[in-house]
Amino acid sequence: MRQVAPSTVRRLSLYLHFLETNSGEGEVTVSSGALGVAGGATSAQVRKDLSFFGSFGRRGVGYAVRDLAEHLRDILGLGRTFRVVLVGAGRLGAALAHSDRERGFAIVGVYDTDAARIGAELDGLAVRDAARLEADLAASPADIGVVGVPAAEAQGVADRLVRSGVRGLLNFAPLLLAVPPDVAVRNVNLTLELDGLAFALRGRSH
Amino acid sequence: MRQVAPSTVRRLSLYLHFLETNSGEGEVTVSSGALGVAGGATSAQVRKDLSFFGSFGRRGVGYAVRDLAEHLRDILGLGRTFRVVLVGAGRLGAALAHSDRERGFAIVGVYDTDAARIGAELDGLAVRDAARLEADLAASPADIGVVGVPAAEAQGVADRLVRSGVRGLLNFAPLLLAVPPDVAVRNVNLTLELDGLAFALRGRSH
Repeated sequence: MRQVAPSTVRRLSLYLHFLETNSGEGEVTVSSGALGVAGGATSAQVRKDLSFFGSFGRRGVGYAVRDLAEHLRDILGLGRTFRVVLVGAGRLGAALAHSDRERGFAIVGVYDTDAARIGAELDGLAVRDAARLEADLAASPADIGVVGVPAAEAQGVADRLVRSGVRGLLNFAPLLLAVPPDVAVRNVNLTLELDGLAFALRGRSH
Repeated sequence: MRQVAPSTVRRLSLYLHFLETNSGEGEVTVSSGALGVAGGATSAQVRKDLSFFGSFGRRGVGYAVRDLAEHLRDILGLGRTFRVVLVGAGRLGAALAHSDRERGFAIVGVYDTDAARIGAELDGLAVRDAARLEADLAASPADIGVVGVPAAEAQGVADRLVRSGVRGLLNFAPLLLAVPPDVAVRNVNLTLELDGLAFALRGRSH
């Protein structure tokens, strides 16, 4: 498959979530204009994004909501279950465990280094000692690892996950992880986004 | 002040968190190379980023950790307290309320539309009925609003926050919010980042 820019993937994902949010309202077709609003793109960009992967819409009619949602799930690779391990059983991890268990991302293990957390339950899974990570992943591999530990421990945890065969990392720590080129990393960072808002609001005050 | 690219702001924030993570280890100076690793940039880029805001480092010596951290907090506008209201008392909101109360982001109100949540406590604050949002913000304005409601309600909540004078939004919903040009938006989205990993891992399987 040709290379697809991360910004395109993000728009496809926004189109999909727009369709999923609105499909309950009985809409049968959707215009490229409405998809564009959802994805922050022009109608022309929407048509270009979608035509890259095949021909879905009909001129003057738009896109069939259900069909397009299914195609987008296929394109994004969401037609399967991803095995996810979570290292760092904090609140962000809990939010993840709770929100995404029905979307094809199955949390199969939760780990922590903090003795106070080990043995506790997080959404139905017992929190395990992070020392067991390598042995558990050797016996039962995972696709995605969530790095939910403090910044000082994050690179070490990422290294251990990668050595154990994990090829996708979701990083919650405010640093850039160094990984081999065949490992994908996405960052979710409340701290950095709040800093960005602080910068945007500097000089203003109530 | 001249226009600063969002990517620059992000790097400044990464430099700051690197300094904060490592300052406890007794390091007095830090090289542009080490900052570059933290921020995903070359040494030359680090020097350029920092020289844009003044002259901080000394050739051959590097940057003084404490001084540079303080300068970065100033540059980013983190020298004050931001009043934050959280709409949608879900788990991501709880993660935020817990993690950032010591960093100058003070959660001053938590709201929800779900009667089952109203009156409950979230990190020391009682969850209020979202119907009170306008009246409360008129009496006691806020700088930042966190949009933590489901996607179908997110734009409506954003509109209400903006009409009530909020000029920075942190959005947890998988859609792009439409806001006036003087309102800053940052997105934190577990769902979109997981979709991005799914796409990166498509065709691979254990």
